[in-house]
Amino acid sequence: MSENNLQVLLKRRPVGEPVPEDFEIAERPVPLPGRGQVLVRNRFLSLDPYMRGRMSDAKSYAKPVELGAVMEGATVGEVVASDDPGFAPGDAVMGGQGWQRYCVMTPDKLRRVDVGEVPLSANLGVLGMPGLTAWVGLEDIGQPKAGETVVISAASGAVGQVAGQIARARGAKVIGIAGGPAKCAFVTDELGFDACLDHRGDLDAQLDAACPEGIDVYWENVGGHVQEAVFPRLRDFGRMVMCGMIAQYNQAPGADAKGAPPGPNLGPIVRKRLRVQGFIVSDTGWQRYPQFRAEMLEMMRDGKLRWREDVVVGLDRAPEAFIGLLKGRNFGKLVIRID
Amino acid sequence: MSENNLQVLLKRRPVGEPVPEDFEIAERPVPLPGRGQVLVRNRFLSLDPYMRGRMSDAKSYAKPVELGAVMEGATVGEVVASDDPGFAPGDAVMGGQGWQRYCVMTPDKLRRVDVGEVPLSANLGVLGMPGLTAWVGLEDIGQPKAGETVVISAASGAVGQVAGQIARARGAKVIGIAGGPAKCAFVTDELGFDACLDHRGDLDAQLDAACPEGIDVYWENVGGHVQEAVFPRLRDFGRMVMCGMIAQYNQAPGADAKGAPPGPNLGPIVRKRLRVQGFIVSDTGWQRYPQFRAEMLEMMRDGKLRWREDVVVGLDRAPEAFIGLLKGRNFGKLVIRID
Repeated sequence: MSENNLQVLLKRRPVGEPVPEDFEIAERPVPLPGRGQVLVRNRFLSLDPYMRGRMSDAKSYAKPVELGAVMEGATVGEVVASDDPGFAPGDAVMGGQGWQRYCVMTPDKLRRVDVGEVPLSANLGVLGMPGLTAWVGLEDIGQPKAGETVVISAASGAVGQVAGQIARARGAKVIGIAGGPAKCAFVTDELGFDACLDHRGDLDAQLDAACPEGIDVYWENVGGHVQEAVFPRLRDFGRMVMCGMIAQYNQAPGADAKGAPPGPNLGPIVRKRLRVQGFIVSDTGWQRYPQFRAEMLEMMRDGKLRWREDVVVGLDRAPEAFIGLLKGRNFGKLVIRID
Repeated sequence: MSENNLQVLLKRRPVGEPVPEDFEIAERPVPLPGRGQVLVRNRFLSLDPYMRGRMSDAKSYAKPVELGAVMEGATVGEVVASDDPGFAPGDAVMGGQGWQRYCVMTPDKLRRVDVGEVPLSANLGVLGMPGLTAWVGLEDIGQPKAGETVVISAASGAVGQVAGQIARARGAKVIGIAGGPAKCAFVTDELGFDACLDHRGDLDAQLDAACPEGIDVYWENVGGHVQEAVFPRLRDFGRMVMCGMIAQYNQAPGADAKGAPPGPNLGPIVRKRLRVQGFIVSDTGWQRYPQFRAEMLEMMRDGKLRWREDVVVGLDRAPEAFIGLLKGRNFGKLVIRID
């Protein structure tokens, strides 16, 4: 094999917004699979907001990436060589193989994917972790009922686009929130949400108009001024699906520290019997992956599930694309095509 | 009947802390029961923090008491005269009969109580709305498991004392928080909590010592600086039972208004997969009253349920006692003995 293994390493821990110098592009020899192992060539890398947490050594639900190590991330690719009877060269697989072109894996970390039904990269988005996140959060916490009003922040993003379409398929009125007219138009015209509000405009006035009766379910992806506008509009027995708060991922000090930006007064949680609950898809999501995938494929066949990817070509552009993701510069699920 | 019907009316809506002048003591003739009605003489009146909300016309889960009307509240007493075949003079009954000596009721608003098992007034506390509140909040939200650490604020109060004992009966380690050494001694020595922390002291240091591994369930009765100390100590998958926030009931503006005191940054709810949920006992609690009562009586027989009442004698002292309740001056479940 003449090709090298291109890798993106974590060079230093960012303070505030990551910068390109926090990453290092390395070229290494392609690894050789050992006994029982599988060599995979990655075709697409998923870039997701949670990766900002892995760059920090602040206490979190998962261990940070070590300095000098390959950045963590999910990929799809194909098997190049295999010493495991369950995988053969050419098999399409997904797994958490990191920001790199090649990887040697044990079979338990790989999942074979069916390339007939959808494009390979969809296994990182609508049929991957972000889609599964949307499904789990609605199953376990949001539980939208027919006729309820559901508000989805970051509605054009990887999780938001799926969450909104599932909620709509279950009969809810779904209002998206996104940044700028192009994303908003996509959310209504392509994804079919009932409305989409631009958080760069007067969000209070737009919410008053779009949700005059209040909000039953809020899908929280962002925090910040969007949370501030939505929280007081939750109705009795409302649910707040706490999926992420990207607006503060680059902030220091962390949300736990003294001096963190304050949140809402919690009094309305009592009075309105709200349920505000967080979840991490990896806790129980992958055990339920088959059920999720079946439901997504059915929605696709019924024309009820559309999605948009933002494909950046070249692994060396991953740091720049990731930095943009944290600023909302992507439009749709952000993936790197590894050429 | 020569006796008059003493009543406490809402004279004006308090701004901030209620004062005696917000109430009016009135003497009226004893009402006469009409067709199908029951005349009850109340013996005990329950005073509870929720009543502060009823004095305000700010939007809430229940309608406010109208100016000039009798203050709302639960009572226990006995039937004096009845035109309903289900109730006879001398029957002990409970119901929401307000701050008054006599009341005419329809039978559907009355519940007969068994006076053999426990003192009459216990039907307003450990076997009444506060006890039911404790049970429902733990059943539906707190769900303490054996070995978990449960923290109960206002631990010597009507709800807190029951919540802590139920959690202990289910195998949890239970830490109370109360105001002052007398209440703390009662919580450990009489109620049998594993520890009780004085919120007038250095709560951070006390929590570090009592809950070195963090907190699985927090029963929120108070808000304010107690919430601030407990929230960051919640462990992964922690539950926060949002029962009340008495520390801010006298505050203006309300918790919903712009300018309300801020709360915690919600980021940890995602990261730690917390569930922060409010409830109001009257939503579904009374349908489950028989199950609750049976469990409480069993705990009593097993010596696992103790309680303390703070009995103030004389209905005319109810305003002063209620004002004290909001300041934490009561010690145990506050009831008025109506003589």
